[in-house]
Amino acid sequence: MFVQLTAFMLRKKKMNEKIYLDNSATTYADPRVKREIDSYFTDNYGNPGSFNTFGFKAKEAVDDSREKISKILHCNPDEIIFSGSGTESNNLAIKGVARELKLKQGKNHIVTTRVEHPSVLETCKYLEEYEGFDVTYLGADEYGLISGEQVKDAITDKTALVTVIYGNNEIGSINPIAVIGKITREKKVYFHTDACQAAGSLNVNVNDLNVDLMTLNGSKIYGPKGIGVLYVRKGTRIQPIIHGGGQENNLRSGTENVPGIVGFARALEICQDIRDSEVERLTLLREKLIKNVLQKVDNVRLNGHPIKRLPFNVSFSFKDIEAESLILLLDENGICVSAGSACSSKSLDPSYVVLNLGVSKNYARGTIRISLGRSTTEKDIDKVIEVLPKLVSQIRSMNVVSKNGKTRN
Amino acid sequence: MFVQLTAFMLRKKKMNEKIYLDNSATTYADPRVKREIDSYFTDNYGNPGSFNTFGFKAKEAVDDSREKISKILHCNPDEIIFSGSGTESNNLAIKGVARELKLKQGKNHIVTTRVEHPSVLETCKYLEEYEGFDVTYLGADEYGLISGEQVKDAITDKTALVTVIYGNNEIGSINPIAVIGKITREKKVYFHTDACQAAGSLNVNVNDLNVDLMTLNGSKIYGPKGIGVLYVRKGTRIQPIIHGGGQENNLRSGTENVPGIVGFARALEICQDIRDSEVERLTLLREKLIKNVLQKVDNVRLNGHPIKRLPFNVSFSFKDIEAESLILLLDENGICVSAGSACSSKSLDPSYVVLNLGVSKNYARGTIRISLGRSTTEKDIDKVIEVLPKLVSQIRSMNVVSKNGKTRN
Repeated sequence: MFVQLTAFMLRKKKMNEKIYLDNSATTYADPRVKREIDSYFTDNYGNPGSFNTFGFKAKEAVDDSREKISKILHCNPDEIIFSGSGTESNNLAIKGVARELKLKQGKNHIVTTRVEHPSVLETCKYLEEYEGFDVTYLGADEYGLISGEQVKDAITDKTALVTVIYGNNEIGSINPIAVIGKITREKKVYFHTDACQAAGSLNVNVNDLNVDLMTLNGSKIYGPKGIGVLYVRKGTRIQPIIHGGGQENNLRSGTENVPGIVGFARALEICQDIRDSEVERLTLLREKLIKNVLQKVDNVRLNGHPIKRLPFNVSFSFKDIEAESLILLLDENGICVSAGSACSSKSLDPSYVVLNLGVSKNYARGTIRISLGRSTTEKDIDKVIEVLPKLVSQIRSMNVVSKNGKTRN
Repeated sequence: MFVQLTAFMLRKKKMNEKIYLDNSATTYADPRVKREIDSYFTDNYGNPGSFNTFGFKAKEAVDDSREKISKILHCNPDEIIFSGSGTESNNLAIKGVARELKLKQGKNHIVTTRVEHPSVLETCKYLEEYEGFDVTYLGADEYGLISGEQVKDAITDKTALVTVIYGNNEIGSINPIAVIGKITREKKVYFHTDACQAAGSLNVNVNDLNVDLMTLNGSKIYGPKGIGVLYVRKGTRIQPIIHGGGQENNLRSGTENVPGIVGFARALEICQDIRDSEVERLTLLREKLIKNVLQKVDNVRLNGHPIKRLPFNVSFSFKDIEAESLILLLDENGICVSAGSACSSKSLDPSYVVLNLGVSKNYARGTIRISLGRSTTEKDIDKVIEVLPKLVSQIRSMNVVSKNGKTRN
């Protein structure tokens, strides 16, 4: 009830007065992306499968987009498969390869980690429960990282696929994808990485990374929502999860989402164009935020690796704090952040990713993710540094009062 | 080579000089839809799963859209599942129900028809080939229609699902969904219909139709591309095909495509608001076109039922004509139409739907679909009536020359 009322009050506030620090959940579409896609709704609206001028124009736009993306990923255009989301791309990569290799080669083992996004974990659990697969879930180290050695040790002659997240969506840690990819290549096992969070800031050259499959997501790179990409290295044995007209190299049927595709390509281009300067700018802001909060607040820990982390990700766990209360109070003060992840934010359980780091529950429950973005300014960060410690103190003092039995009902 | 060159020339023409008669392949997004969704890209861009103001606003938009759609379908909001396309909705309906009922009740039989969209047929074929299902493919009558009796006779105690297309995407025939639904209900078998083509013009009240699952598609109802809906009646046993964060009632994970969802709802509302007048207007134009072409051209047949047909669909088969040539010449004359369907348009084989009507190959190869739409005027139809017969004569006379050995190489 408290939550519902507060949510109602918050909604009355104006959006543009708010500081948005939830860019890991989703980004706004860059205005340049928006401008680029506008004409594809009402003018250049053909079906790329149609054999007429409207179809040819639409197909041209899709082909051009595929080519732009392939240049950034250093692959062939026909290795780019458009899907409806990062989640769908992860599902396609894992189910597609796993089912095909089980059928053709009797391989029924998957290696993944305990710190993946739910779209990887739930897919693996489904394959375990319903389709007879064995899944090895590698535990991460105290920073949330997976090592090449762990992967090496987990691979068997039944392994169809290894899938390891690139930049973690909750705690920002960056896994050694190229190292792991070298091992999977030696072992001749397919390697997929979920690069949804990483794509805007890190190297996405598929040859440097030694990956066979890689997931990207428009809504995390200042592109449109509802559009994902799966890179599929030529020759990879994989079957579709959505059947029909045979679009996308027969791997993902359905009328192509032309504005989404065009917008994705433009968004990725912009990310690449400004990557170096943005990474530098965001890293400085991130470090300022981390340093100040760790200095000003007692009993707080930074989750994830201090250096090997996404430039825009900050994850704190505050002892004896309920994340929900802190997030609502921050919001009332004009600062929008999340709990562990958007997907898990409606659950009151502490994040499985944070617990996997060995963080105790009295910290883990107080985990918030502050994810910076293209619109974040130093002024925004200064505001967080000013407000956050006060709110933490406020909640903690209320807790003390509450424990003394003086709480209102 | 001829085709490539011609395609190149066509692309140079201005789009707005063209008459677009390929609305079954995809429609433009209505400008009112476009205006409605604009702010969701750059302002109201939160993740509906996020526990902050941006998330609440986004969730509100999704909830409102779900409610609007549910009123039109006469169902509960939580029976509306958003997907990435009509194709995905068809896949979810069929695989989702079939897998669940096979697992829980040992049912492994599906009833469908030979005139479905590829997203239904290929899904059924996949389940036959890889997952041990038996599929009955009902043949349509000379008009492309399926009867309740056929469905009744096909159902066994192993039948998990019946799926029959509502309005045919190639030939426009409208199946007796309510009648079939009455039978499946009596037989206690789930019933799905692909209403992608029908949704803009026909009754989509799920109670009138007696359906348990129904597919709709944004890109066919003047909404955005990349957004589909699956209506799933409460209590229907179904499992997801895309796993992850548990969005959409745990039936379709992935960050919600908020602009797509908002646009879909607005598009469906507009379709409903203007349905009666548009159906009347388009039916008159359709009849004018059919009557005049049948009068002016020899050796042509109308495919599909003369009356029980989508108001915007015209499908002709011209004897001794290659559809490709006719479509290209029409395009050169400013008229954009398709072969059988957008999905099959790149294949030179005659449409399986048209062949199923009993149409001979020398007619079936010359099949074009002229699909009218919201922007179609009487002037457009007069132009087609003027141009089409001439082009048919022209191609036929070239064929005669060609057969006499006087063709250039």
